[in-house]
Amino acid sequence: MPFASLLVDRIPIYPVSSIVAVMMDQEIVDRISSIVGDKGFSASKAYTYAYSFDASIYHGKADMVIQPRDVKQVSEIMCIAYEHRIPVTPRGSGTGLCGSAIPLKGGIVMDMSRMNHIERISVEDLLCVVQPGVVYEDLNRALEPYGFFFPPSPGSGEACQVGGMVALNASGMRAVKYGATRDYVLGLTFVKANGDIVHAGSGTLKDSSGYQLARLMVGSEGTLGIITEVILRITPRPKTSAMALLAFDELETAGEFVAALIAEPLIPSSLELMDNVSIDAVNKAMGNPLPDCMALCMVEVDGEPEMVEKELITVERVARKAGAQEVELSHDRKVMNSWTSSRKSVMTALSSLRPGYSSVSLADDMVLPISKIPVAVKAFQEISSRHGVILATYGHAADGNLHTKMLIDARDREQWLAAERTAREIFQTTIRLGGSVSGEHGVGISKVPDFMGERSTAISTMAEIKRAMDPYNILNPGKLFQWERESSLYGLRYPCEPR
Amino acid sequence: MPFASLLVDRIPIYPVSSIVAVMMDQEIVDRISSIVGDKGFSASKAYTYAYSFDASIYHGKADMVIQPRDVKQVSEIMCIAYEHRIPVTPRGSGTGLCGSAIPLKGGIVMDMSRMNHIERISVEDLLCVVQPGVVYEDLNRALEPYGFFFPPSPGSGEACQVGGMVALNASGMRAVKYGATRDYVLGLTFVKANGDIVHAGSGTLKDSSGYQLARLMVGSEGTLGIITEVILRITPRPKTSAMALLAFDELETAGEFVAALIAEPLIPSSLELMDNVSIDAVNKAMGNPLPDCMALCMVEVDGEPEMVEKELITVERVARKAGAQEVELSHDRKVMNSWTSSRKSVMTALSSLRPGYSSVSLADDMVLPISKIPVAVKAFQEISSRHGVILATYGHAADGNLHTKMLIDARDREQWLAAERTAREIFQTTIRLGGSVSGEHGVGISKVPDFMGERSTAISTMAEIKRAMDPYNILNPGKLFQWERESSLYGLRYPCEPR
Repeated sequence: MPFASLLVDRIPIYPVSSIVAVMMDQEIVDRISSIVGDKGFSASKAYTYAYSFDASIYHGKADMVIQPRDVKQVSEIMCIAYEHRIPVTPRGSGTGLCGSAIPLKGGIVMDMSRMNHIERISVEDLLCVVQPGVVYEDLNRALEPYGFFFPPSPGSGEACQVGGMVALNASGMRAVKYGATRDYVLGLTFVKANGDIVHAGSGTLKDSSGYQLARLMVGSEGTLGIITEVILRITPRPKTSAMALLAFDELETAGEFVAALIAEPLIPSSLELMDNVSIDAVNKAMGNPLPDCMALCMVEVDGEPEMVEKELITVERVARKAGAQEVELSHDRKVMNSWTSSRKSVMTALSSLRPGYSSVSLADDMVLPISKIPVAVKAFQEISSRHGVILATYGHAADGNLHTKMLIDARDREQWLAAERTAREIFQTTIRLGGSVSGEHGVGISKVPDFMGERSTAISTMAEIKRAMDPYNILNPGKLFQWERESSLYGLRYPCEPR
Repeated sequence: MPFASLLVDRIPIYPVSSIVAVMMDQEIVDRISSIVGDKGFSASKAYTYAYSFDASIYHGKADMVIQPRDVKQVSEIMCIAYEHRIPVTPRGSGTGLCGSAIPLKGGIVMDMSRMNHIERISVEDLLCVVQPGVVYEDLNRALEPYGFFFPPSPGSGEACQVGGMVALNASGMRAVKYGATRDYVLGLTFVKANGDIVHAGSGTLKDSSGYQLARLMVGSEGTLGIITEVILRITPRPKTSAMALLAFDELETAGEFVAALIAEPLIPSSLELMDNVSIDAVNKAMGNPLPDCMALCMVEVDGEPEMVEKELITVERVARKAGAQEVELSHDRKVMNSWTSSRKSVMTALSSLRPGYSSVSLADDMVLPISKIPVAVKAFQEISSRHGVILATYGHAADGNLHTKMLIDARDREQWLAAERTAREIFQTTIRLGGSVSGEHGVGISKVPDFMGERSTAISTMAEIKRAMDPYNILNPGKLFQWERESSLYGLRYPCEPR
């Protein structure tokens, strides 16, 4: 992709002769590299190429990669970027699935990986203070000796960084009981587009002192500021857990079970649903680890041993009453891990179903009111079969968060278009059912059009805030808002039907 | 107070000849009253006087009181207010303690009390949808048959409205276990200064679709929009609860107990602390219901009966190990209620201690890192004794939220000034210890100077957002930001020491 095509033509970042011009303006490059030092700076082709990608299907091209060491360096770099209108794309581990870390408009990729210190664990204050580059599971390993943890558990937990989790409001299987990242951010420090350092929120459990800027930063995907420190609430680690594997002969029955369990009320620590396409794919690829059925629920309960026991009995009772064909219970960590890994292997299992075909994530991460899960899964199946696409649906049923994977020959243009049409209809169905296009992955690049339709009444307010905090649109430009598809950069109203 | 003195001189709301001018512009009045009808409109002296006050020490004067019935009426009124630059102060039950509902700049008080419908309780979706005028305890009574509740439990729960709770991020005794209002707002609808209706967030448990506008609205005190509907997460009601009353001979010992209990880890549903002044006052006024000691903790644990039993044993063990003089346990609702009401009667008890003296709340609602509670209480005692003021300190020790009451003869100017100096030093000490001037009451009018000092790095970003969303400063003007004390209306930087 030629660099020039990545430029925003309405923001005078660089002259359109572009990369040459940047490279020639050695003074700017020197100023930036002198701030972070040789080890924190690269403009080499290899480096900038490596940072062109994240875990999404998109790519961009940065002019330079910066790895700051502290908030002061971040602030100094932002001052230069602000002065010269240089785009800055902050980046964690690049595990995001929607393109949030792609340097779509060139400029600087700011890799936060070197700011990876756990600054403080204060159990008596129920919080920890971390730099954004701390890896999620590293933090939990550090918290374990105290009997505490930071619960959101994203699927990429072994790689993803806390800063990225905050930027995308990441979560995972445990959100129904423990909430998402937004529920744990007590405070954070961020650097604004103009280089100002802002301390938002506080190191206290309660906070009614003005606007909740820390919570506004959660999910802002690097478009409002660079997060340089996070104060996270921590919570006691459950003593033990157990699981139930439940097979149903109808998807609706599984849906009724979920509703009945919650109305009990029993809030499981996780409740995963798999449809028959997902089950078939896993069984074919992995030698039938799962019961052959139309829908499967994996329920996890956690806490004190006696409560776990009691809740597991309730899960079985509710499941049998709802009409579960098969109920299997386990306290064995090995068995539970094998069930969980079956659930996690849907994508790879699907890819091995048909030679030349691969599994693609075009419509993932829809979130719905919990009670709408069965009708949504049915509708997704109907949509995909109408377009002749094999679709697997699974996800965190108890918090309403569904993922789908499509099996297509991606080299076949017709199949790709059918997959895209399927994705679009899945998003529209989700919105019609009162859901949202992103539960835990963010909007990034991939979900912009549907996000703008879904949030049509809110988008202009979001744009007002963006414009107020980043008047030159240098922070992660091209994300969330389709600036480049609009005739005016700001004050846009996307022509979508209201919610 | 003459009406003219309440006008903002830099915003041309009305000519300074003021109320006469408003009254004469019968066309505006007619347009507004025709929107809400006779029952929803009053400009009578009696009505506007009644709405001059809330539960704080401040007062203002509105030109008219409006009671809208639905979001459409709110939007139509805001369109007129926007066109004519009329200040609008939204109001719930007026139970706020910091002046957030005072119509400081005249104009319209928008009383949301008539929008008091619980629109939907959806247990299977773990949420309810309510209008802002629903009273907190009414909502909980409606949720009780389902076995669910909305936990924040503000002290004014029998009167305060959900809209006000959201506007102030209210909470109460249970926040250490259950969080504050901000942790329950999944979505909300609000009307902007210009009359636009915005749907923020969604009716789903997860949400990574763009900026968390719903959470930004939490704690914005009516300065960013009028809340017309709230989607709240609900949570299972604990089956039972029990309490421990713990007497300590040193404040530090009580503080060590709190830290030890949390490090156990055991998160109580509430943990109230009273210092010796509070204990003495209650004992003298109410016939010695409490043990005579230097510090008292009331710990509540809740949940399933077997867990409550287990946790109560832990509380006793940790308390004895920390050096509690006296430990009393109870499962009896009557006994527990009497303990709780002793704690709640500090203010009145203090007022009856000395004839002619009364208890005033100048420095209430400080919030600190939990571990700083003992040193903070000690410091508050030292400050008040240095100024010759009798000070009682008590509060939600496990979430770090402290309240103080001072006993003074409020007619004595010297005593009042001493109380004010004491309050100022208490706030400064709180900030120095890493705390915040408001945990659950908001900033309103009373906390503006200390809030601006505490949040000195964040205040200009808050002002940018305010300006972007309410360019004419018509929404609850005079709150949060000290507009009127600044020479420029926007873009201010308050000259305070950084945090």
